[in-house]
Amino acid sequence: MDSFIDPRQVVGYSFPPLQFAYSQRDVALYALGVGAAADPLDPEELKFVYELSPAFTPLPTMAVTFPFDAIGNLMNVPGMRFNPMMLLHGEQELDLLRPLPIQAALTNEAKITHVYDKGSGALLMIEAISRDEAGHVVCINRSSVFVRGLGGFGGERGPSGLKNQPPDRAPDEVMIQKTAENQALLYRLAGDPNPLHADPAMAAWGGFHRPILHGLCTFGFAGRAVLKLFANQDPRRIKRLECRFTRHVFPGETLVTEMWQQEPDRVLFQVWVQERDEIVLANAAATLAG
Amino acid sequence: MDSFIDPRQVVGYSFPPLQFAYSQRDVALYALGVGAAADPLDPEELKFVYELSPAFTPLPTMAVTFPFDAIGNLMNVPGMRFNPMMLLHGEQELDLLRPLPIQAALTNEAKITHVYDKGSGALLMIEAISRDEAGHVVCINRSSVFVRGLGGFGGERGPSGLKNQPPDRAPDEVMIQKTAENQALLYRLAGDPNPLHADPAMAAWGGFHRPILHGLCTFGFAGRAVLKLFANQDPRRIKRLECRFTRHVFPGETLVTEMWQQEPDRVLFQVWVQERDEIVLANAAATLAG
Repeated sequence: MDSFIDPRQVVGYSFPPLQFAYSQRDVALYALGVGAAADPLDPEELKFVYELSPAFTPLPTMAVTFPFDAIGNLMNVPGMRFNPMMLLHGEQELDLLRPLPIQAALTNEAKITHVYDKGSGALLMIEAISRDEAGHVVCINRSSVFVRGLGGFGGERGPSGLKNQPPDRAPDEVMIQKTAENQALLYRLAGDPNPLHADPAMAAWGGFHRPILHGLCTFGFAGRAVLKLFANQDPRRIKRLECRFTRHVFPGETLVTEMWQQEPDRVLFQVWVQERDEIVLANAAATLAG
Repeated sequence: MDSFIDPRQVVGYSFPPLQFAYSQRDVALYALGVGAAADPLDPEELKFVYELSPAFTPLPTMAVTFPFDAIGNLMNVPGMRFNPMMLLHGEQELDLLRPLPIQAALTNEAKITHVYDKGSGALLMIEAISRDEAGHVVCINRSSVFVRGLGGFGGERGPSGLKNQPPDRAPDEVMIQKTAENQALLYRLAGDPNPLHADPAMAAWGGFHRPILHGLCTFGFAGRAVLKLFANQDPRRIKRLECRFTRHVFPGETLVTEMWQQEPDRVLFQVWVQERDEIVLANAAATLAG
């Protein structure tokens, strides 16, 4: 398949608005997909997976799944064509404007805001706004996706400064989380069914010797670490999360989230894979409410 | 709450027929709930959890979940009243008459066929017939549930002979399966949301120091062992499964399924918990097609 991109057509493209409904069961499934309730007797974790808990609530990071269907048909955007297995998640920014309902039918409006030429590939920036049935904005997701092999079309390289650099000292908190061998198979039922994360043949097509974990699954594990250690397990205290995905994770690997309190309302963090001593999620920050 | 039972009212009670629809995602979720794809690279397990697999199929034991809603309102049967946390699953028989569809809307008709007085409790026998949209019987479940504290009403004790006794020799095959600490929290999303399996307070009300695993989740793990070692991972070869639940399992424990080929088309099996050296599922048999 010949791949190509015409930025003049792609930049500014608006996806058709799409509703995303989720149930209380979906809330619990997402939470299990990012490793919640690994200790099922911890009452502060049970509230994310047990719908009869008086404090039942979605994990804040669940909000990244809301616009998934709305931007899922990236393959149908006029002006570009590429092998979907060459697509990798670059960065994610999530602004949480209202508490996430325990069940909802949200409307998502998404558009492609920028296209950058990184030489080895194209970087697409997508913004998605999720509104509840009353029309209130619940959250805004900004994602960048990197399409390997789609660069060299003569576009701008875009911004390259590294933000959210952790300080040169030991982290204030560290959380170690083991993912399950079949973590991606579970996460995909709530988050993103892309075959890259399940099918060895599809993973090979994408250049991986086995299926990789979703970047947003790693993001969910890291979000749980920040929520527990800096927000007292209260999702309403998480106002914004942002990160860059630097390497893939294989299901079964151990995630080490290092966290620094930079300001009273701001935590910087990054995630290592213990088995390969590689940073997989970097330049990350959480903005907290008081 | 005063508990009582009037067998004259209860025996013969027919539950209102109830539809049970399941999606391909539900099929995958059930399979993960009983531990499938613990090795996500095993292609013979991937077909139970990955809807784009050419061989995608439900696990045969998923059929026990079909009538769950239909018999779920056991609390509303006229002529009895009891604490639902005192209910334990006694025995299960599953006849599989047709291959399970990868998605379906089934109609379930269930009735209470017998009530026995076991002294320390009452044993209720329930039969549920599941039909597809064309009216074909897909499967028949027969369950017995034991309600602790509801005995002594002067009824018959019922049959007591032990069937499916394993032979006095080492098993022909053994499969060891570790359950996850949060296995019950995952299984309940596909199988049975009873709070006994999630909420420590509810478990305590039922007399357990922590939530226990669903008997039918253990049944699913054992069914996977038989399917793999005696049916070449082909669900169509499983015609019937039957078992008795003898003890509870705590999530996180290790299940040891011992299997004996009794006849070419019949396998006896039982399940131990390795950590406590106790039999939890006994008098079990699988009937196989050639």
